[in-house]
Amino acid sequence: MPTSSVQQWGVFELDAPSAEFRHEHRTVHIDGFEDGDGIYKLRFMPDAQGRWDYSTPTGQPGSFEVTPPSPGNHGPVRVANTFHFAYADGTPYVPIGTTCYAWTHQGDALETQTLATLRSAPFNKMRMCIFPKHYAYNNNEPEFYPFIGDRFNPQFFRHLERRIQQLGELGIEADLILFHPYDHWGYSTMPPEKDDRYLRYVVARFAAYRNVWWSLANEFDLMKSKQMSDWDRFFRIVEESDPYGHLRSIHYSRTMYDQSRPWVTHVSMQDDDFSKTIGWRDAFRKPLLYDECKYEGNIRQRWGNISARELVRRFWLGVTQGAYVGHGETYLDPHDILWWSKGGVLHGESPQRIAFLRRILEQAPPGGLNPASEYYPAAGQPGRYYLYYFDYHQPNGYEFDLPPSASYKADLIDPWEMTITPIPGSFRGKFRLSLPGKPYLAARLQANS
Amino acid sequence: MPTSSVQQWGVFELDAPSAEFRHEHRTVHIDGFEDGDGIYKLRFMPDAQGRWDYSTPTGQPGSFEVTPPSPGNHGPVRVANTFHFAYADGTPYVPIGTTCYAWTHQGDALETQTLATLRSAPFNKMRMCIFPKHYAYNNNEPEFYPFIGDRFNPQFFRHLERRIQQLGELGIEADLILFHPYDHWGYSTMPPEKDDRYLRYVVARFAAYRNVWWSLANEFDLMKSKQMSDWDRFFRIVEESDPYGHLRSIHYSRTMYDQSRPWVTHVSMQDDDFSKTIGWRDAFRKPLLYDECKYEGNIRQRWGNISARELVRRFWLGVTQGAYVGHGETYLDPHDILWWSKGGVLHGESPQRIAFLRRILEQAPPGGLNPASEYYPAAGQPGRYYLYYFDYHQPNGYEFDLPPSASYKADLIDPWEMTITPIPGSFRGKFRLSLPGKPYLAARLQANS
Repeated sequence: MPTSSVQQWGVFELDAPSAEFRHEHRTVHIDGFEDGDGIYKLRFMPDAQGRWDYSTPTGQPGSFEVTPPSPGNHGPVRVANTFHFAYADGTPYVPIGTTCYAWTHQGDALETQTLATLRSAPFNKMRMCIFPKHYAYNNNEPEFYPFIGDRFNPQFFRHLERRIQQLGELGIEADLILFHPYDHWGYSTMPPEKDDRYLRYVVARFAAYRNVWWSLANEFDLMKSKQMSDWDRFFRIVEESDPYGHLRSIHYSRTMYDQSRPWVTHVSMQDDDFSKTIGWRDAFRKPLLYDECKYEGNIRQRWGNISARELVRRFWLGVTQGAYVGHGETYLDPHDILWWSKGGVLHGESPQRIAFLRRILEQAPPGGLNPASEYYPAAGQPGRYYLYYFDYHQPNGYEFDLPPSASYKADLIDPWEMTITPIPGSFRGKFRLSLPGKPYLAARLQANS
Repeated sequence: MPTSSVQQWGVFELDAPSAEFRHEHRTVHIDGFEDGDGIYKLRFMPDAQGRWDYSTPTGQPGSFEVTPPSPGNHGPVRVANTFHFAYADGTPYVPIGTTCYAWTHQGDALETQTLATLRSAPFNKMRMCIFPKHYAYNNNEPEFYPFIGDRFNPQFFRHLERRIQQLGELGIEADLILFHPYDHWGYSTMPPEKDDRYLRYVVARFAAYRNVWWSLANEFDLMKSKQMSDWDRFFRIVEESDPYGHLRSIHYSRTMYDQSRPWVTHVSMQDDDFSKTIGWRDAFRKPLLYDECKYEGNIRQRWGNISARELVRRFWLGVTQGAYVGHGETYLDPHDILWWSKGGVLHGESPQRIAFLRRILEQAPPGGLNPASEYYPAAGQPGRYYLYYFDYHQPNGYEFDLPPSASYKADLIDPWEMTITPIPGSFRGKFRLSLPGKPYLAARLQANS
């Protein structure tokens, strides 16, 4: 008789250095982690309902019951169909990310404020560094450090995993950045043995949280003490250590890592040339995320001072070419609390427009949007759904040429004003829609069911 | 004793098939052209003041006096210093072009209206085809045809040269397009002998007008019946036939002609990727003109429906990277009178902003603006003058780092609102200017004299 229960894709914990979990024909080996004072714990995320049994090297064997997931628990996110994602239960996942690199290193007051902001923000993915960050606008020391001497600091990791869980409660994927160059503590220049030990520890400790993604690095190519072979090894360690196969990517500054490697599950771009989107998709045949396409803000650095309108434009250029785009915000603050790194509150004009876009994307048929036209950016599903974006073009009309198998209803969308205006009528095959001769508009065509 | 006089860079005419003109140590051979009924005329543009003598194969020798140019006559435009232009008298020429491809084929009423529009428009260069045009929105037949059978139609050419002269009176360079593919009369598929005879005729007839430029073609690469060797030969014929060395370029659709050839005096671009501007300048080391970067308008074709704001942005991106940009306008009209091809009146919002930019450029020190910064588009003259454009960036300030040899006065420029706001103070070396955190602004720094 099982002594306890946990929901599917929940976390089952045990005080043990390792364990074997068994369900029907399967056995899963799980490594634990030291949580201070020589005490080992392990965490396991069962992916199937029913009875699971386990045994450990030293303790009593046991079993537990895996119950259906609670509402809102859809399991981890996977690549569903080459270019798009879904949760493990099949629910589509449309990534609408933001970035607060160092938000978990700011102390409880600010971190709580960040979580409160996220509660009503449109974002369902957070790019965040495990290590603290030293950089412009980031001169404060963290409350916790990851190491005490050469040993892992349990306080640091307990704090971080609480934040990961809190993001999960908000439906936000934690895109954990494992290494980054903005460092004055030495975390970017650890010896290989310590790098590897760190990776195994992080994976053992966090992988059971279903909302975890692994981002091998932010701007890996700026970490001059690492070789390309180090990054290959890091990927291999993460891939081998993670029993659940969480998503893996690597972000770059100027030089791309070879995104065609099989262990890269999706392409994390730093770029703002959206004319290359379809080329990148075709080259890698993986989900394409413009995780960093410059941030809405007003700081001196040009990566952090584009206008809200420009960022909204980039979101639309991305999604109407079959990719996804990430948000960031860098408005100057007297206390250097810039959302992009520390979180806090949002000041910009793009988030509500991104929320508007997210609703449109989530109302689209499941399976994601793929490029549908080369004349204007347009993506959709053949014969079913199309989203067009006219960018700085302002035609007084457009002649659509859609598969004649369906008739369509049409909407004119103003991404900035956040209006959706139905166009009266039903349309089929080749047809023309009048447009108001105004730039930055979009159109949606949905097959009548 | 001279029997007549003409001003410098004016036109001296003679009824003769050819003539030798002599001034001091120089002799210039000028070919005439048949003006119908077997009557030959010739035209000569003297480039120096004083007495000129001439002789013809059959008639009396003669002489005439070349007087100083009248106000507003600065002679033909030349390449002055690798990347920029000046008139023959040294006056800077800042090209601010527009395009009315077929405006001289529309009949007197509309052509007169076009000239009236140009009188108050900001343009000082007109891209225009010699041959009539058959294309979308261009289905009307011209009043005059260039050939009667195999012979040149004097009415056609008299009409065209009157329009060239009228442009000259308005201070507008006539960028004459010698060939183009949008044809249903056969002008794009003439045999080589006829092509060559046509070129020699046009040069003999028009080269004496000081405001003539030669554009070998519009979209040469779409003229499938011509080989690259034909274009080389056309250039050579124009170069050899033109006693004055008027400017020569060639416009393309997708494939560039080799712009490094010595007979190409400046690069006529069809492109809108302004991130390549500095690369193109460095590659060719010639003046770079984005003659076609898409047009303000609302037609269905995406080359003809960008917003006024986007076109103004492109003008600024070009000039602040050391290049020049051309205008065109394509608003739908019930009678298909689109400025881009037929002329008429202007409807758009960009021309007045282009006028504003032209005034700024003409107030800059002579010699043209060359790239001065890579962080934001900026062009200027070292230690003397700088024009910055922040594009979609909205920094709350910018730290300039200018040669400390001078102190500068600073202006904040709003290219759309057309305001120039002096920033109080005098600035030197490294200094910071506060900016209003608004996109699409510019800044001007001028050394205090």
